[in-house]
Amino acid sequence: MTTGWLVDGKPGRVDPRDRGLAYGDGVFETMAARSGRIRWLDYHLDRLEEGCRRLAIPLADRDTITHEISAVCADGDRAVVKLIVTRGVSARGYAPAENPEPTRIIGMARWPAHPASYYTEGIALRTLELRLGENPRLAGIKHLCRLEQVLARVELNETNEQEGLLLDTSGFVVGGTASNVFAVSGPTLLTPGIRRCGVKGVMRRVLLESCGQLGLRPEESDLAPQALRDADELFVSNSIFGIWPVRNLDGQPRRVGEATRRLQELLRARNRE
Amino acid sequence: MTTGWLVDGKPGRVDPRDRGLAYGDGVFETMAARSGRIRWLDYHLDRLEEGCRRLAIPLADRDTITHEISAVCADGDRAVVKLIVTRGVSARGYAPAENPEPTRIIGMARWPAHPASYYTEGIALRTLELRLGENPRLAGIKHLCRLEQVLARVELNETNEQEGLLLDTSGFVVGGTASNVFAVSGPTLLTPGIRRCGVKGVMRRVLLESCGQLGLRPEESDLAPQALRDADELFVSNSIFGIWPVRNLDGQPRRVGEATRRLQELLRARNRE
Repeated sequence: MTTGWLVDGKPGRVDPRDRGLAYGDGVFETMAARSGRIRWLDYHLDRLEEGCRRLAIPLADRDTITHEISAVCADGDRAVVKLIVTRGVSARGYAPAENPEPTRIIGMARWPAHPASYYTEGIALRTLELRLGENPRLAGIKHLCRLEQVLARVELNETNEQEGLLLDTSGFVVGGTASNVFAVSGPTLLTPGIRRCGVKGVMRRVLLESCGQLGLRPEESDLAPQALRDADELFVSNSIFGIWPVRNLDGQPRRVGEATRRLQELLRARNRE
Repeated sequence: MTTGWLVDGKPGRVDPRDRGLAYGDGVFETMAARSGRIRWLDYHLDRLEEGCRRLAIPLADRDTITHEISAVCADGDRAVVKLIVTRGVSARGYAPAENPEPTRIIGMARWPAHPASYYTEGIALRTLELRLGENPRLAGIKHLCRLEQVLARVELNETNEQEGLLLDTSGFVVGGTASNVFAVSGPTLLTPGIRRCGVKGVMRRVLLESCGQLGLRPEESDLAPQALRDADELFVSNSIFGIWPVRNLDGQPRRVGEATRRLQELLRARNRE
């Protein structure tokens, strides 16, 4: 019966009445662990706190969460650690309890074995048919309602590209199915503003904050698909794989450029910190 | 530890890796039980099957599900029975397993005590600020991603109306936070088409199929908010409470009309079948 996961600090399972299951009423983080330590932990907890704040879910303090994460990923292997915080059990119906008792769920998954070529030669990106619904109230945070991403992934798997590009219903670029997308255009590092839908990735924040070191100017804005086609360089990012250059967009080959290489090198240097 | 809920036919809890929790990857039904029997069971199972078909989640046969429902609501009290079907446990990541093993979760909740005046005098309905994101791929089915409804319910609770009216991002009417909305306009029974977002309620189907008996012509279409203000009569419906007339929309008093009364009477007659 045990799965190696902790529910509120103890090995266990989840109450079937939990609102995380019933309504997707919660948030999560997917984090890279190495040698028992989480990469970018503070940034993950910043986003988790922001999500809980916007959904009015009370959150345990950082020490408690950090302690539970350590208990789960104590050994030295590379792994993915997943942390879910839900609004907990309540009476039936969408209305939250006045004093919710949130549920914390923490577990580990195997580190994914990505081909080295994804880093060196890059990946193929295909624009998907599925459009993401827009809701500014939920934009940016990593909430549990991810059925659109599941459908997007199913659509992507019909062909052989490594990542799918998603637009919102207004026709602007949001990002990949499980990544953010960046375009280098001259000295500017462009990425969608994530104001109507999508997730503000932890790696997205790292790159926006540190690209100035390479002389790149970060810019968050509404990006039309044409802006990606016109860009000098394209790449996708997330906190598990870091940066993958895009070598092909919708069947059109692209050059993997110098700025992308230097950002990858910057990440490698920071990983040695 | 036991909650009275069945997970795959046995009393138990849910695996923390279940995709219903992780991604809202599943569907549910909320059903009215009386004397150990579910009202409109075939319609609920029709919608459940449609949801599973569109999400490519394999579903147990009706006999198995019906048997489990009976086990949960064997006693004679009025109750709400909830049935959840998820895509089950899979490896981490949005991509579904090739051969998913779905999870069935069934449980019971207390019958809600609604004031009799909601049926006789009607309720107040207020248009909410929150707009629903649009995704035709998910429209109509009762999937587990319900965070928008939770936020809508929180917004509604700021004031004293009994139900909130939701528009989509295009500005058309979708329905209530937990109900469908109907407008009577002359001999026509109008309701939103639920093509971009929203849930096609079981009671909505009952009413569209049976209103012809009262000489009403059903029409599903894009409804602007003005169409509701211009209507002769307004009401909301769901499979738990049936029909509540709207006696006030956004502060404007409304007459509870004859067609609404006759539809309520029709439902009462069918409940005696």
